[in-house]
Amino acid sequence: MDSKNKELADESTSARRGFLSKSAALGVAGVAAGLTACKDDAGAAKGAAAGAAKAAGGHEVAPGQLDEYYAFISSGHSGEMRALGLPSGRTLKRIPVFNMDCMVGWGVTNESKAIMGTKADGSLKYTTGDTHHVHGSYKDGTYDGRWLFVNDKIHSRLARVRMDTMECDKIVELPNVMGFHGMFPDKCDPVDSKINYTTRVFCGGEFHIPLPNDGRDLEDPSKWGALFSCVNAETMELMWQVRVDGNMDLVATSYDGKLAASNQYNTENAADLSGMMSSERDACVFFNVERIEKLVKDGKFSTIGGSKVPVVDGRAAANGDPKTAITCYVPVGKNPHGVNASPDGKYFVCSGKLSPTATVIDLALVAKWFAGEVKTPRDTVVAEPEIGLGPLHTAFDGKGNAYTSLFLDSQCVKWNVDAAIAQFKGDKNAKVILEKLDVHYQPGHNYSSMGETKQADGKYLNSGNKFSKDRFLPIGPLHPETEQLIDISGANMKLIADHTAYSEPHDGIIVRRDVVKTRQIYNMDDFPNAVKPETAGIERKGNKVHVRLMSVAPAYSMPVIKVKKGDEVTITLTNHDKVEDLAHGCALPTYNINFIVNPQETKSVTFKADHAGAFWLYCTHFCHALHLEMRSRFLVEA
Amino acid sequence: MDSKNKELADESTSARRGFLSKSAALGVAGVAAGLTACKDDAGAAKGAAAGAAKAAGGHEVAPGQLDEYYAFISSGHSGEMRALGLPSGRTLKRIPVFNMDCMVGWGVTNESKAIMGTKADGSLKYTTGDTHHVHGSYKDGTYDGRWLFVNDKIHSRLARVRMDTMECDKIVELPNVMGFHGMFPDKCDPVDSKINYTTRVFCGGEFHIPLPNDGRDLEDPSKWGALFSCVNAETMELMWQVRVDGNMDLVATSYDGKLAASNQYNTENAADLSGMMSSERDACVFFNVERIEKLVKDGKFSTIGGSKVPVVDGRAAANGDPKTAITCYVPVGKNPHGVNASPDGKYFVCSGKLSPTATVIDLALVAKWFAGEVKTPRDTVVAEPEIGLGPLHTAFDGKGNAYTSLFLDSQCVKWNVDAAIAQFKGDKNAKVILEKLDVHYQPGHNYSSMGETKQADGKYLNSGNKFSKDRFLPIGPLHPETEQLIDISGANMKLIADHTAYSEPHDGIIVRRDVVKTRQIYNMDDFPNAVKPETAGIERKGNKVHVRLMSVAPAYSMPVIKVKKGDEVTITLTNHDKVEDLAHGCALPTYNINFIVNPQETKSVTFKADHAGAFWLYCTHFCHALHLEMRSRFLVEA
Repeated sequence: MDSKNKELADESTSARRGFLSKSAALGVAGVAAGLTACKDDAGAAKGAAAGAAKAAGGHEVAPGQLDEYYAFISSGHSGEMRALGLPSGRTLKRIPVFNMDCMVGWGVTNESKAIMGTKADGSLKYTTGDTHHVHGSYKDGTYDGRWLFVNDKIHSRLARVRMDTMECDKIVELPNVMGFHGMFPDKCDPVDSKINYTTRVFCGGEFHIPLPNDGRDLEDPSKWGALFSCVNAETMELMWQVRVDGNMDLVATSYDGKLAASNQYNTENAADLSGMMSSERDACVFFNVERIEKLVKDGKFSTIGGSKVPVVDGRAAANGDPKTAITCYVPVGKNPHGVNASPDGKYFVCSGKLSPTATVIDLALVAKWFAGEVKTPRDTVVAEPEIGLGPLHTAFDGKGNAYTSLFLDSQCVKWNVDAAIAQFKGDKNAKVILEKLDVHYQPGHNYSSMGETKQADGKYLNSGNKFSKDRFLPIGPLHPETEQLIDISGANMKLIADHTAYSEPHDGIIVRRDVVKTRQIYNMDDFPNAVKPETAGIERKGNKVHVRLMSVAPAYSMPVIKVKKGDEVTITLTNHDKVEDLAHGCALPTYNINFIVNPQETKSVTFKADHAGAFWLYCTHFCHALHLEMRSRFLVEA
Repeated sequence: MDSKNKELADESTSARRGFLSKSAALGVAGVAAGLTACKDDAGAAKGAAAGAAKAAGGHEVAPGQLDEYYAFISSGHSGEMRALGLPSGRTLKRIPVFNMDCMVGWGVTNESKAIMGTKADGSLKYTTGDTHHVHGSYKDGTYDGRWLFVNDKIHSRLARVRMDTMECDKIVELPNVMGFHGMFPDKCDPVDSKINYTTRVFCGGEFHIPLPNDGRDLEDPSKWGALFSCVNAETMELMWQVRVDGNMDLVATSYDGKLAASNQYNTENAADLSGMMSSERDACVFFNVERIEKLVKDGKFSTIGGSKVPVVDGRAAANGDPKTAITCYVPVGKNPHGVNASPDGKYFVCSGKLSPTATVIDLALVAKWFAGEVKTPRDTVVAEPEIGLGPLHTAFDGKGNAYTSLFLDSQCVKWNVDAAIAQFKGDKNAKVILEKLDVHYQPGHNYSSMGETKQADGKYLNSGNKFSKDRFLPIGPLHPETEQLIDISGANMKLIADHTAYSEPHDGIIVRRDVVKTRQIYNMDDFPNAVKPETAGIERKGNKVHVRLMSVAPAYSMPVIKVKKGDEVTITLTNHDKVEDLAHGCALPTYNINFIVNPQETKSVTFKADHAGAFWLYCTHFCHALHLEMRSRFLVEA
């Protein structure tokens, strides 16, 4: 720890740093015991609630006022995406993606099941998910308001959400990938520079597995591998994959579209904890997208198992010659966690996690390395400041400053990129660390307003903290997490709000509200199965019965619906109400059917009428003074 | 509308009231068209965002400060319960109940599936739910912090949540009930007055159905009926049911334990909308619990179909003699929606919904009616003030004032109960209506701090509004709802916050924070299947394999787990970490398994290992700096 950092740290922080720098000298056992995330620092915790209360003056969003920004965040193993308003922290919407959501009927309706994927028997293939990263589609280096993308780590899926309706419209499962973690859309076409918007989404595979994973090589992890995948943003189909060394974590893309990169831990390709930490350095692997696509175009690829996706070899051993290499492994701090692009387009910053450093890589030098004009990959590094313990993710303010979350220090550190570069060149007077702010506690991701675009505006920073400890009323053994909002517009960081989050939020983006242009009503003609007065009614073909229903508050079009036990019944419901937000529900007791239809929207369900009786099909979504009376008799004859 | 009310209404309110009083004179068609909940009153909506912004001065909960109250609210067809902090509106926890929740593994683990209920093949019986009411258990007329109860309307289930861990521990399905809507615990034993705490939960059945519902009587709804059910709060088993006329909506209980009541719409027993509205009055039905239990004890009951639950006849025709009657039908305003007990223990208030009135019923007079000392049920009514259009639910401040949500007026009306009684007696100078406050928009439930206890403290009122319209940033066709927090401690109501809610919150309670005593850690010995060092490991019996796993950050106890394709595998995981909130996840890719274990907790899953390969079982819940490295190889041999 350099003396500058020590001076900046206040007394309690110093105490924590002392404890940690001591444990950092221990071996694996020491790390496991000493770096435990929530070592119960009772004194610090108790002090917080009493002492840290500060007025958020000027940032409150009063009744009737609107927020300035949207935040779109991943929800971890809740499986959804969330949309918040900032600075209020209001949850505007939970967007179901990989999880079932019985309010809207996600995982219940035929339409949502088709997107989520089903088994042969029609049941959902997966009902669990683990989202980590949300990113938006780009145009001209900033968000175009078209799409949001989000990953699923547990079942290696990429999902897309339409920003006009804020609903998931596509999910694709990546073949031969396990632990799909980092993800980033490109910002420009890597080949055709005239295409200045998102066309591809890059996906990092974290866990190495047998390729194909069909039972072979179980005993020999050295034969296992991980793949970096490219998905077509429009069709959501796989374009290609690259086999790499190491475990890929996060992904970043350059503003010119030429480079994508992923920070890597376990470049040792080890299968156990101590092995994963044995090297002093891991890597940030850069991908030369144009060269990869040339190989694929030229047919110079293989495939794995039953997958038809072209796979090229990006392992270091196969990429010794920079002039033909498709990958460049830049050595960075040990077990890095996070790679982020600076909004000026010049640098990627990789955090150390087990090293107290951030590594600044100059993209122009990486391009030169691929041209054979730079000697070693390490020569692309232009700064590596010591910033604190457990650095994970870095956000930017568009004014040359970086903000890195320090997991072990429970702090956010503000540092200057140019000063770090000067220091790296030998300037001993360079003032790299500008400020450290305590956050509560153990921050993971952080992200700033428009910070991953050329329009980074340096207004807000969100610190997603993994442990809330005593920051909120006790609620049992499982605590909420904290999303702390920090005003970064002034010379000093100012903590303005503690927002709770249902575990476990990860990465997110903060988007200026004018970027988002939503539809407030559907177009009935967008649904080919829309039920109109001329098609409404009941139709039987053998034991298949189709009930075509319409809703207009406070009634469904059929007061009585009759089927026979054993029938396969499809109910298609079109909401003919046109008033904004006048949604209706459709619940069928004992048949486990429940979904809503927004104005002018159509949804359907198919099920077997396997038990006889009278069932009141009722509206679940408050629509009218006579909402309770909005119901039809669904009669199943024995 | 009386002139007093007209004076109180401001100009825009008058306009809305004029529109509505006109439509109230129309027939069914007029009602359907005219009373539509969100008739797009564009002028009013636009005005709100610009004009209604007011500072919430003094109510903000700054970083590091704790809330004063908990709110426990139902979530509608999201199927969960929610715990909020007030006044901040922070969501402290989503408590999964009837919904799947892939963060904690609710609906995934064996333990949660046993509570939720499964089909013969082990899959969940239901994955949808529709909660409406949350109430707490009582002692001495106030919350004892032991249990929360919540209903499921779609599949007629009652669930219980332990307040020490804030987790659901029991769910019971009510037989021969459809549309289980209102629910309330008793506050005292109806028979033994020394038992001054909750022993029973009363459940209103809304929809009338064939009894039993096995395919009979489909064509003749006049034979259908609805049941009022009593559940033992401790065992969660059914005690008895009462067959009634009409459709039961909400439930209230008296502080002395003697009476329970449910407001009823469709006393006409009609099967269609116009029939349900044909009578000028509907009813609030009172249950004489002691008499019901005497009948049951004496064996004077029947049963329905395969159910063994004792059923007694509470229909009006069978209860003509007050001295033996078990029910008393008190006529109230048309199609009432809501019945609430005043905290002084004297009155139940029933709202009119299609009548602009609230009916105040004197419980002492109801007791006298059952004693044959009051001529007609209507004579128990001591006030029926006109309070506004679409009155739904009433909350109390403990100072003699009532606050009723006015769905159609989009207002909260504050009125004085004693003044209403005086007015009903003929006092023309009684000042009944004290104030009306615009809410945004179409309020459903409202509830006040400690308002359903003898400790009603008159501090906060929450108005759960069904339509947010323009109050929040646009988020697509489906809008959030608004939970508006109102300070009712002063002479005038003051709107202090617009909180968003994921659709669709219904009823809730606001509980002083000192009432809630949570456990912050589990006791390992509470779990009979806890895995300890002496039992940890893998055990095979035929093709059944039991993997007994332990977690201590950042590792599971077994780095490699080997099974064979075709095995039935049970993984039991005990978290041996003791630090508060140090939870670990357990995700198994491609096997759709994901759950978390809190410190000292044990959970298990059972599944068939139906595909071969290497799968990294990994931790999903951030636990440690080396969280990403916390994973084991789960090998399925072909």
